[in-house]
Amino acid sequence: MSTTTTTAGGRERWAVGPEAVVLDLDGTLVDTVYQHVVAWQEAFGAIGAALPAWRIHRRIGMSGSAFVEELTRDAGVDVDETVLRRLSEVHDAAVHRSGGQVVAQRGARELLAELTRLGVPWAITTSGTLRLAGPALAVLGVPDALLVCGDEVRRAPRAPRALDLVVIAAARLRVRPSSCAVVGDSVWDLLAAGRAGAVGVGVLCGGYGREELDRAGAARVVDDPAALLERLGEVGIGAAT
Amino acid sequence: MSTTTTTAGGRERWAVGPEAVVLDLDGTLVDTVYQHVVAWQEAFGAIGAALPAWRIHRRIGMSGSAFVEELTRDAGVDVDETVLRRLSEVHDAAVHRSGGQVVAQRGARELLAELTRLGVPWAITTSGTLRLAGPALAVLGVPDALLVCGDEVRRAPRAPRALDLVVIAAARLRVRPSSCAVVGDSVWDLLAAGRAGAVGVGVLCGGYGREELDRAGAARVVDDPAALLERLGEVGIGAAT
Repeated sequence: MSTTTTTAGGRERWAVGPEAVVLDLDGTLVDTVYQHVVAWQEAFGAIGAALPAWRIHRRIGMSGSAFVEELTRDAGVDVDETVLRRLSEVHDAAVHRSGGQVVAQRGARELLAELTRLGVPWAITTSGTLRLAGPALAVLGVPDALLVCGDEVRRAPRAPRALDLVVIAAARLRVRPSSCAVVGDSVWDLLAAGRAGAVGVGVLCGGYGREELDRAGAARVVDDPAALLERLGEVGIGAAT
Repeated sequence: MSTTTTTAGGRERWAVGPEAVVLDLDGTLVDTVYQHVVAWQEAFGAIGAALPAWRIHRRIGMSGSAFVEELTRDAGVDVDETVLRRLSEVHDAAVHRSGGQVVAQRGARELLAELTRLGVPWAITTSGTLRLAGPALAVLGVPDALLVCGDEVRRAPRAPRALDLVVIAAARLRVRPSSCAVVGDSVWDLLAAGRAGAVGVGVLCGGYGREELDRAGAARVVDDPAALLERLGEVGIGAAT
């Protein structure tokens, strides 16, 4: 398999493979990104910040506050608690009106089951809220999964911007962040993986292009969880256990 | 400006710049791609072909029949006239239910006005139907624009697959296809430009990544019509007139 005896530089983790896996939720495990883009577009419109869909798409998955700040800055809209609440309300109503269907990405359920079978600890992260994540976990058949939400990053007692989902998830899994593989559909997931010294695995099923994920530091880019399940050995997952 | 005296190989068109401009509609001039992705996903689901959103996104803009054939092939769904009608009905109803808002991309109206001011002939193409294109042309302020629809390609008397929107649009504009610049958000637009020997200009506002458009042969990739308007000289548009 992919185990090697190389120990030079920062690659020693490859010798045994990542010890744990941190997986992004929206776009990576469930096929909800495009719904959310349309819903956020309506929500930003409602607060007077008309935004093109592609810019929203490319910002989804940033930490919650950065997402709103980056997108409203150009539109010159001041954001306070009232505006944030309104954004969230219109977004949620739009998702609800569209049927709010949450569908698992191909192979997502099977990938999680295989990690469990292999004894590889795993956690799910989302920049969104616990309330929206619940139905997704149910669809994935893992209602009791270890989940780290954007809520928690925002409520972190100090230096909240410096902490991020990967670091918190690794702490919960009781592994070093650099011992994790991070699976995500957005450049933000892969940049977070890089900051943590983790192995980043990009999936195309959130709608980014392959080269965008490559450039953000992905060690591998695959179509979706089903493709990753077939290539777990390539990123050393399961090799450590 | 960008005019050159190079006449070697196929680059002689750059000496004077493209004589005419063919612009894609959905994703390029109006911000409707993400709405359509969600609506098509619902429609394919209704005919028993559950498809991930990203695969629909990356197929939008193919000629109508290829779009449906490629997407249903993997799902193993047989497509006949009844199924096609059902697809179209569910898609249209979903667009309608979501408000069916058509918003111009940034700078789209201004770009068309500038082409007119410069005396550069232009046409708009869409792989969709005349019925859906009408409201978009109204939003762009060009209800009487020269428009070539997917309908026309499908109804073409012979070799319909070999003809495509760019070739038909060039004929209507009374220029050679190779004398056109083709502006589009999808790899299909740029591949069509390449087949026609035209200058391809990619825009990111349909949600593709920059490198995807580069690799499909774009001479330039810009954010959106507003950015193209600022850089018309770079692709020689306006230089011929």
